[in-house]
Amino acid sequence: MSDLPWYIGYFSGKHWLRNIDYSIEDIFKVLEAAKDLKEKFHRGEETIYLKGKTLYLIFYNKSLRTRNSFQTDIYQLGGMGIYISPDQVYAPTLPEDMIPYQTEAIRDVARVLSRYGDGIAIRIYGDAAKWIIGRGHRIINEFAKWSSVPVLNMEDDLYHPFQALADAQAALEALGWPKDLRGKKFVVSYAYSGGLKPLAVPQSVALMAAMLGADVYIAHPPGFELMDDIMAQVKKYTEHWGSEFKIVHDMDEAFEGATFVYPKAWSPKGFFPPFSSDGQVHKDEAKAYQSRFKDWIVTMERLEKAGKPFYMHCGPADRGQEVTDEVLDIYERSLYFEEAENRLHVQKAVMAMVMGKRS
Amino acid sequence: MSDLPWYIGYFSGKHWLRNIDYSIEDIFKVLEAAKDLKEKFHRGEETIYLKGKTLYLIFYNKSLRTRNSFQTDIYQLGGMGIYISPDQVYAPTLPEDMIPYQTEAIRDVARVLSRYGDGIAIRIYGDAAKWIIGRGHRIINEFAKWSSVPVLNMEDDLYHPFQALADAQAALEALGWPKDLRGKKFVVSYAYSGGLKPLAVPQSVALMAAMLGADVYIAHPPGFELMDDIMAQVKKYTEHWGSEFKIVHDMDEAFEGATFVYPKAWSPKGFFPPFSSDGQVHKDEAKAYQSRFKDWIVTMERLEKAGKPFYMHCGPADRGQEVTDEVLDIYERSLYFEEAENRLHVQKAVMAMVMGKRS
Amino acid sequence: MSDLPWYIGYFSGKHWLRNIDYSIEDIFKVLEAAKDLKEKFHRGEETIYLKGKTLYLIFYNKSLRTRNSFQTDIYQLGGMGIYISPDQVYAPTLPEDMIPYQTEAIRDVARVLSRYGDGIAIRIYGDAAKWIIGRGHRIINEFAKWSSVPVLNMEDDLYHPFQALADAQAALEALGWPKDLRGKKFVVSYAYSGGLKPLAVPQSVALMAAMLGADVYIAHPPGFELMDDIMAQVKKYTEHWGSEFKIVHDMDEAFEGATFVYPKAWSPKGFFPPFSSDGQVHKDEAKAYQSRFKDWIVTMERLEKAGKPFYMHCGPADRGQEVTDEVLDIYERSLYFEEAENRLHVQKAVMAMVMGKRS
Repeated sequence: MSDLPWYIGYFSGKHWLRNIDYSIEDIFKVLEAAKDLKEKFHRGEETIYLKGKTLYLIFYNKSLRTRNSFQTDIYQLGGMGIYISPDQVYAPTLPEDMIPYQTEAIRDVARVLSRYGDGIAIRIYGDAAKWIIGRGHRIINEFAKWSSVPVLNMEDDLYHPFQALADAQAALEALGWPKDLRGKKFVVSYAYSGGLKPLAVPQSVALMAAMLGADVYIAHPPGFELMDDIMAQVKKYTEHWGSEFKIVHDMDEAFEGATFVYPKAWSPKGFFPPFSSDGQVHKDEAKAYQSRFKDWIVTMERLEKAGKPFYMHCGPADRGQEVTDEVLDIYERSLYFEEAENRLHVQKAVMAMVMGKRS
Repeated sequence: MSDLPWYIGYFSGKHWLRNIDYSIEDIFKVLEAAKDLKEKFHRGEETIYLKGKTLYLIFYNKSLRTRNSFQTDIYQLGGMGIYISPDQVYAPTLPEDMIPYQTEAIRDVARVLSRYGDGIAIRIYGDAAKWIIGRGHRIINEFAKWSSVPVLNMEDDLYHPFQALADAQAALEALGWPKDLRGKKFVVSYAYSGGLKPLAVPQSVALMAAMLGADVYIAHPPGFELMDDIMAQVKKYTEHWGSEFKIVHDMDEAFEGATFVYPKAWSPKGFFPPFSSDGQVHKDEAKAYQSRFKDWIVTMERLEKAGKPFYMHCGPADRGQEVTDEVLDIYERSLYFEEAENRLHVQKAVMAMVMGKRS
Repeated sequence: MSDLPWYIGYFSGKHWLRNIDYSIEDIFKVLEAAKDLKEKFHRGEETIYLKGKTLYLIFYNKSLRTRNSFQTDIYQLGGMGIYISPDQVYAPTLPEDMIPYQTEAIRDVARVLSRYGDGIAIRIYGDAAKWIIGRGHRIINEFAKWSSVPVLNMEDDLYHPFQALADAQAALEALGWPKDLRGKKFVVSYAYSGGLKPLAVPQSVALMAAMLGADVYIAHPPGFELMDDIMAQVKKYTEHWGSEFKIVHDMDEAFEGATFVYPKAWSPKGFFPPFSSDGQVHKDEAKAYQSRFKDWIVTMERLEKAGKPFYMHCGPADRGQEVTDEVLDIYERSLYFEEAENRLHVQKAVMAMVMGKRS
């Protein structure tokens, strides 16, 4: 094809582990490519840019949305995804955790798969990463270190880069694709769930909002602080744009006058290593603690009172805990399904950029 | 392709949940398409009618035959199937059963997958539907309600439409494709198994035989009555054609002079809600009860005595319980493997009709 | 394509269960085809020789390497692999083991899949074959007996033919593709692991080395004898070539002056039926027994002392038991990753030969 789009192979051979490994300009390039791919998708145009390429999808956690969007992506690009489910593989093994004949060293798995195919995508957090915060990310880094084909982070315990890219696309679309998000208030807020969720989404979304120039507000009860170094980076990006960065402890105060609200559960990190005082995992205590904050729920009233901001959530949202049914089913400024759809487009963009060959 | 067959997109965008949602004429159209696709398959002709389309296959039960036929189908049509196994997904959730963060609402799953691909196929019955008869079918209806792409029923606890279509094709083939089955005695009979099987197959096959004009005989021991409303519909179809409809309680009496016999296990519904008197599930009692009817087994002698009818079964047949090895392995009028093969063709026909675009 | 390579359909319709079912000339033909396919792979050339073909991959054991190489293979040949994991299928059933409604007869599974697709590949050993040595191989033979499409052995409890072919390719490559391996010392040695491994790899590799003309040395502690009839066949091949065949009981003695060493764990067969004196499975005793031989480990020192032979292992190697990290990570004459890659090429060769159609 002589008329390949400009973005094929634009970052040829690179990994995609965190958005912040790339520049603000790079992120806008990805979003531009995603816009093109979305338009083509809706026109029913073929986008066979990775013909014959194989992507290995290694899931150490259950998934409906991420798995199906990735596997559909690579197929719609002309390639094939091989889905490897948690029960079909041995525990991923960092050098310090090797148990011979029950595990296989990541360095070996990565090098073998690099001989066969064209990309390795991985999801790992929570139980699969022993609830040691940062361990999932270290595992993905270990894959990246040894793989000679691009490694894609499908969510670890610190970052969920493709979710944040999909959200960025949805936010820009909602406003008719402004040049950036300067002057827009973007709220990343805690919302209650009975389950234990990783920090990956709020951290990645806050970073993304900051990279795009928004005024970033983080809202949460005490004990739900995000990681210091990530907050420092959010601050750095807001300083770059000259925009605001605030942490508040009241949902309504945060929502007031916002353009976007992103209310979502995460776990109180003090109950998990390396943040717990005794270095142990305290899942039951974490659940007991977070159950004090059941009033952090998004309702129609709350949204109306705030001035009808766009509602955002990565999905799946816990109905009746994080958000009421009404908001998901009838709130007219919900971006919930658009964000889900955009996973398809931003992932396709990055895959075409890193797995494609520059012509 | 300017020479696309007439059936591509013939029912574009429709769901396929029950054959009785379609007219008798429609069913004959599907069988005509299946005949064409079978001929092409055996000539080794390409049938790339759904190029680039994705079908999500959600299985809440184990499956070899259904899964492989569907996944092969969509591939042979030029598309791709994504197989989602029971252990890789959260429990399907009707609104009344939601447990936040352990389940995901069907309304959300259906709407998300509709954004990514082109069809959703589902199998659910038995344990996965809590043995509340009709619950599996309600779950599939819930998917259909929220999905904007075609939903295909790969077997629920009331209906198995594609099995009945495959059987119809096998029956017509066996007789050299007559216009219909008028004047042919078609027996749907209970046969013993130690396992608990859904009502889907006998109900769907009886309905199909009636739709095609056969004289329909249902044979079973007391306690194995099929559902009243479905029997009423069988009756309605036989009245339409002016053919017979009878329920008998003796296998040999039913088999006598039959053209087709379809002896197959199902569960005594009185042991399961909503039919059990106390509204509870009684699996052990159901098994104990059905073990009284081990003489409902198909043997060579029985078939010979009946005048050598065509033997039919959806598979897998329980050897030594429903049927003897001999019948499956050497009976010359067995349609067992032809029915299995026809799954491939009728499913392809329906997929091409509902997932294809009219040119 | 008028310019199809010579090997497409060369063994059209045949099964591939053991390499010794083929002649020495045939094996060289496969390796020649694999060489061509490897070159094309590295040149990025398309090899669409099995367009539209479906391969069913039935795994009764976990697998990363075999599964991904096979599934990538069929895709790179233009076809599709359907992966069937251990938990998604019922136990494979030989006639003597049938439990109605919990199992499905292999004769039925094989005949049904033969109606749908173009090949059936199977892996079964260890727990899945009840640790009755030879039972896994009998199961694969049962599939082959009833299947009308090629059956491929992805490793049973006696043979791992594709591993041995990949190893043969790696050995020939290492020496610059000599005509055969005459005059080269090839050592198949026991190496310690805490796990219980099948006899398939050492037996298949010893047979292959003998077929290619090497001087074959088998090294192991007492109790780790390979099967008599297989050793008899190794002897027969070495007699054909006039090469040596020796069994020794010391790793260093065996390694001395070798061109290739293949040190790898297997289980002491006397603890398993049909070799155990009481006909029972003794897993714990087998593990206790083999733990006496932890000094059968490959180290840099050992390799240097032996004169730097090529190090070979099918993978995954148990680090710290069978071999030290150093050997896997920095030994310059290791063929470990090349053997893994060659799985891709030899499997593609055999698939093209048995599943392809002669033009």
